[in-house]
Amino acid sequence: MDLDLIKKLAKPADTKIVLLVLDGLGGAPLEKGGATELEAAETPNLDEIAAQSLCGLHEPVATGITPGSGPAHLGLFGYDPIKYQVGRGVLAALGIDFDLRGDDVAARGNFCTVDDQGLVQDRRAGRISSDKNQELLRLLRDIEVEGAQVFLRVVKEYRFLLVLRGENLSEAVGETDPLEVGYRPREPKALRPEGERTAHLVAKFVEQVRSKLADQHPANMVLLRGFSQRTDWPQFPEVFGLRAAGIASYPMYRGLAKLVGMEVLKAGENMADPFGVLEGAWGDYDFFFVHVKPMDSAGEDGDFDRKVRLIEEVDAFVPRVFKLDPDVVIVTGDHSTPAKLAYHSWHPVPVMLWSRHCRADEVKRFGERACLQGGLGPRMPAVELLPLALANAMRLEKFGA
Amino acid sequence: MDLDLIKKLAKPADTKIVLLVLDGLGGAPLEKGGATELEAAETPNLDEIAAQSLCGLHEPVATGITPGSGPAHLGLFGYDPIKYQVGRGVLAALGIDFDLRGDDVAARGNFCTVDDQGLVQDRRAGRISSDKNQELLRLLRDIEVEGAQVFLRVVKEYRFLLVLRGENLSEAVGETDPLEVGYRPREPKALRPEGERTAHLVAKFVEQVRSKLADQHPANMVLLRGFSQRTDWPQFPEVFGLRAAGIASYPMYRGLAKLVGMEVLKAGENMADPFGVLEGAWGDYDFFFVHVKPMDSAGEDGDFDRKVRLIEEVDAFVPRVFKLDPDVVIVTGDHSTPAKLAYHSWHPVPVMLWSRHCRADEVKRFGERACLQGGLGPRMPAVELLPLALANAMRLEKFGA
Repeated sequence: MDLDLIKKLAKPADTKIVLLVLDGLGGAPLEKGGATELEAAETPNLDEIAAQSLCGLHEPVATGITPGSGPAHLGLFGYDPIKYQVGRGVLAALGIDFDLRGDDVAARGNFCTVDDQGLVQDRRAGRISSDKNQELLRLLRDIEVEGAQVFLRVVKEYRFLLVLRGENLSEAVGETDPLEVGYRPREPKALRPEGERTAHLVAKFVEQVRSKLADQHPANMVLLRGFSQRTDWPQFPEVFGLRAAGIASYPMYRGLAKLVGMEVLKAGENMADPFGVLEGAWGDYDFFFVHVKPMDSAGEDGDFDRKVRLIEEVDAFVPRVFKLDPDVVIVTGDHSTPAKLAYHSWHPVPVMLWSRHCRADEVKRFGERACLQGGLGPRMPAVELLPLALANAMRLEKFGA
Repeated sequence: MDLDLIKKLAKPADTKIVLLVLDGLGGAPLEKGGATELEAAETPNLDEIAAQSLCGLHEPVATGITPGSGPAHLGLFGYDPIKYQVGRGVLAALGIDFDLRGDDVAARGNFCTVDDQGLVQDRRAGRISSDKNQELLRLLRDIEVEGAQVFLRVVKEYRFLLVLRGENLSEAVGETDPLEVGYRPREPKALRPEGERTAHLVAKFVEQVRSKLADQHPANMVLLRGFSQRTDWPQFPEVFGLRAAGIASYPMYRGLAKLVGMEVLKAGENMADPFGVLEGAWGDYDFFFVHVKPMDSAGEDGDFDRKVRLIEEVDAFVPRVFKLDPDVVIVTGDHSTPAKLAYHSWHPVPVMLWSRHCRADEVKRFGERACLQGGLGPRMPAVELLPLALANAMRLEKFGA
């Protein structure tokens, strides 16, 4: 759906919408015919809501596409994730709460190993620890390039964030990662004329890194990917006419909410925390993105039973959302993370939309197979959920006369 | 679907298609878990057809979008309603059977109330009656603007139609309605250079209106919206290769049929009338759009029981369609009008497609929840129905070799 069209139709109303995202909710059975994590979990509260809701499964980006966290959330926020792409550098900055400003250019860096000829031997420098990473960044902190400030931050293990801050910088710079071992790191090249100056600054930076890391092992060089800048996307509150709050404990999700213009409310890491923040902020916003992280981590660890247990835990918090008397509630995941794959996957994600005006279907249980029979269908594009939430919140004008 | 592609594939055949539109058919339960209007109705004939048909629900424009009658019908006619938008002025003309020609520019007018300073106090002039409207238009009928004929017609209550007829007129004129009270009506401005002359004519018109209505109260000024001209859209008979008839009693629906190039056959206001016209014209056309209005009005009145009764009434006429031995019959609504909301809504609309060649699903009952399990799915874009009807009528060539 075109955001311009939605913006034209959006109208004010005294209604509140909750988007409850259980990260990595979707799953898969360990054996053919078995239950998924969600199906195996006892979820009396989610099931009760399902019986009064429109149910289905959504596809975060497109059929067969396994999404990263960025695109997966953008779809749920109503932004077509293929049209609105976030660069790796910006995502890395969001992920560690780095406050990108104006024209800042961010890139994701890897420490790597090069041999005597300068050919890349290991693109991840033996997966050094985060502590080692911190120690190496200390060696680099007095690097200066004329015309820009340099910021370096640990991301995790061998990954770090590089930010250049200055006037007239551009993201139009090619990656230096050759993507295969046995090759020299690429020279940073301008992808378009406006990238010339920034490419030159990056080259100056890399030159100094090479000499400062020369005696280190295995991390004696860096590779840079995903040069990118903050976007000037249409902002969520303006497009949808909603005072919007993003409630999350992990920086990545707070960063994504901030990127589209939501106000960000930090939650602690306990599962109860985002629900407490929601209750406290209830009077101040029309839209609440509530992010609950841990089932995704259990899925990524391949821990089916832990994921089941976490889903059962979150089920107990669902009544607290409904006690606030919301007008529309969407419960879903951003993507699937089946413990069986121990990774994000392309599988459609269970979703239900509750409102007084939704025409409930006959699904009585919140689970992958039950939701196949629901009114949202088995493969709803995630990006269509938000317009439907607005409709159910009586926040869209009629289209045409 | 691209109309050019359909046009290329369309081939002649000796088959007939009926599109039976029960206006505002889709509904919603009054209470969670209850029946919709269609589900509450006893519809033995529709149910019998459903058991032999492909069933499902369609979305007239897009997920979450509540359509006006214009877009809702255009989708059923195979025209993407977001791409093919009809201006308010043209729709108003269609709605009162005004015969727009050539470059005629139509606008929808409101009588309004302005104060001593000329600031709008009431955009609808206290919702004056249609009779009062007629009386006021009589005061305006000797207005002349050089270079164009002026036509003024009552639409309803405070709403009227303005049409300018002349050479080289353009719809590129901005609205004069400030959309909020406390502001002066806007000057009619050209939106593009070709609108300069028409904007000037409109300004001359408004100037005379102001002086002629000066002593009237509450309707002492007018606001104009939706300047628009007839379109040169691809025409239905050429695109789809069908001799097409539109059978309707209300002018709006006849107008929409005419807009896409169908021949229009006027039906009376009894529910039996369109079916009689259909029988009479059976030999002369390949495609019949048959419009049955009253369930929409019952929905808009919030009268659940009357809507149920009207659906039961129309059910009795369905066998008359099948006695004609059609090749393809689609039964659906243009949009939902749940009595509970007393307004058009975004809810998907039950639809069934009957033909000898359709691969019937297992749906045995024509109703919102039953249709969720049908072969057309729970959220089929309305615009895809017509190509499917053509296919079932053996009227589309194979695509590619």
